[in-house]
Amino acid sequence: MKYVVTGCAGFVGSNLTDRLLADGHEVVGYDNFSTGRMAFLSQALDHKRFRLVRGDVLDLGDLTAAVAGADVVMHLAANADVRFGTDHPRRDLEQNTIATWNVLEAMRQGGVKRIGFSSTGSVYGEPQVFPTPEDAPFPVQTSLYGASKAAGEALIAAYCTGFAMRGCIFRFVSILGERYSHGHVFDFYKQLLDHSGQLHVLGNGQQRKSYLYVQDCLDAMLLAMDRSSGPVDVFNLGTDEYCTVNDSIGWITGQLGLRPAVTYAGGERGWIGDSPFIFLHCGKIRKLGWAPKFTIKQGIERTLQFLQKNPWILERK
Amino acid sequence: MKYVVTGCAGFVGSNLTDRLLADGHEVVGYDNFSTGRMAFLSQALDHKRFRLVRGDVLDLGDLTAAVAGADVVMHLAANADVRFGTDHPRRDLEQNTIATWNVLEAMRQGGVKRIGFSSTGSVYGEPQVFPTPEDAPFPVQTSLYGASKAAGEALIAAYCTGFAMRGCIFRFVSILGERYSHGHVFDFYKQLLDHSGQLHVLGNGQQRKSYLYVQDCLDAMLLAMDRSSGPVDVFNLGTDEYCTVNDSIGWITGQLGLRPAVTYAGGERGWIGDSPFIFLHCGKIRKLGWAPKFTIKQGIERTLQFLQKNPWILERK
Repeated sequence: MKYVVTGCAGFVGSNLTDRLLADGHEVVGYDNFSTGRMAFLSQALDHKRFRLVRGDVLDLGDLTAAVAGADVVMHLAANADVRFGTDHPRRDLEQNTIATWNVLEAMRQGGVKRIGFSSTGSVYGEPQVFPTPEDAPFPVQTSLYGASKAAGEALIAAYCTGFAMRGCIFRFVSILGERYSHGHVFDFYKQLLDHSGQLHVLGNGQQRKSYLYVQDCLDAMLLAMDRSSGPVDVFNLGTDEYCTVNDSIGWITGQLGLRPAVTYAGGERGWIGDSPFIFLHCGKIRKLGWAPKFTIKQGIERTLQFLQKNPWILERK
Repeated sequence: MKYVVTGCAGFVGSNLTDRLLADGHEVVGYDNFSTGRMAFLSQALDHKRFRLVRGDVLDLGDLTAAVAGADVVMHLAANADVRFGTDHPRRDLEQNTIATWNVLEAMRQGGVKRIGFSSTGSVYGEPQVFPTPEDAPFPVQTSLYGASKAAGEALIAAYCTGFAMRGCIFRFVSILGERYSHGHVFDFYKQLLDHSGQLHVLGNGQQRKSYLYVQDCLDAMLLAMDRSSGPVDVFNLGTDEYCTVNDSIGWITGQLGLRPAVTYAGGERGWIGDSPFIFLHCGKIRKLGWAPKFTIKQGIERTLQFLQKNPWILERK
């Protein structure tokens, strides 16, 4: 099959690109390299079935040309940083909502009928039900990131209904693994490289979060795309466990052999719009036969190994 | 208080403007007159406390200037037509999502802290629970209109959390009454003027819909804005009844003294994305002491009287 992967030079996008190529598919990768890294595509670029298009998801013309003739678009390009939304309030709207509309419109113009979308557990805002199922009560958004992804989901569902497309929407917990390049493991590791005896934590360290290893995430996405039948299918993707920020600190410092003094900014939330508890009910994807092969602890350890082996990733792009 | 009403020359917006002026408030009306009518502002324009700004909600600069110094923005400007979304798939995104972001951003820049927003029962897609409560299961969108309004709601909630604003989101059923200028009563009346012996109906006539009289709607909105305490409060606004399209046809033809031959396009839905059953649970707004004063039948009759007295409204703008 012929796939287009938007955000092909990103963390999840580049891993997906490699996987699709390994599975025998043709892949058109689309990225503007604003946060993506060419180094993540080193394997893909050696591949005959891969074609790279340097383009912006805000450019409908380029996008329409890129998706022409594809069977499936995996739309992973995004502003993936939940934390700094209020510093640049238009970024999430543009990168996650308008960009998703552009992808859908490019598909409609090119007659491409299938889409997979990387959404987020943040669309549940601060849920009342744990683990949170896909049909949780209609959420009230608490972050610009969550709002912009919820909007992207809504557009996909409307396009699927209106134009006889088929879509799978994946609500990720935080993803870990090789090529991980932002998030708390990254921040903590960077701090500990700078000053091994000291670690500063946003919030009170009691925030409960859930994580999933990137290869487990890809297994789930591809299985769901294969098996889903409805016009729009929504899947939570996560492990059946969660950990506290303090658990995570214990694993990270343990692996590094450090015992830093930990200070806390305080408060239940790491920042405005941070959800103090993320734990998704993943029974729907498990019913299709999927189960994660890695625990959260293993995912964090692999992430840390990746960061240790790739010090260049810590430099600001 | 000083209010800004976007869409002040529209059906609900102009009624709200007149009401706010009658209640002693200052009103800045903002409209681009793409669908709004100057005639709807004839009373307001005579008023000292009213100022009209001709501007587009897609113009952030004009909008920012218009909201400066206001206490409250009532954001009613929208593409309000749920039916033709697939004919112009960017319109809902622009008019209902990007425009709402612009309103929020203009407010943030101007330090305006309170917003009221006209959303829609269409954000529930095709719900499974009737009457549908505000915390119904996370919906799958079925129309570009519903998706674009759900996106607008999400942005409002995120801005309220991120920038300490306060918002009331109103999920309307279809609104009826004076200055009504699009929808099924309009379409049916127009058909019967053209050929009194014949009426063609989209769908099978069994679609069940709920309606609310515009003055009842305004009572509810203003009460909610007054009483709401949380950063984001969502209210369904409707009557505790619904009717079928055929019921409505009976009331309309009865009032006109006509007995047309009725033909049906067939199918459960009037068009792609039409929800065959809309009936909202309005317990939350009723708990604040509100109750509608008019039944659906009375609302339809008043709408028809307005159309009969104002034949100019039937001409295409």
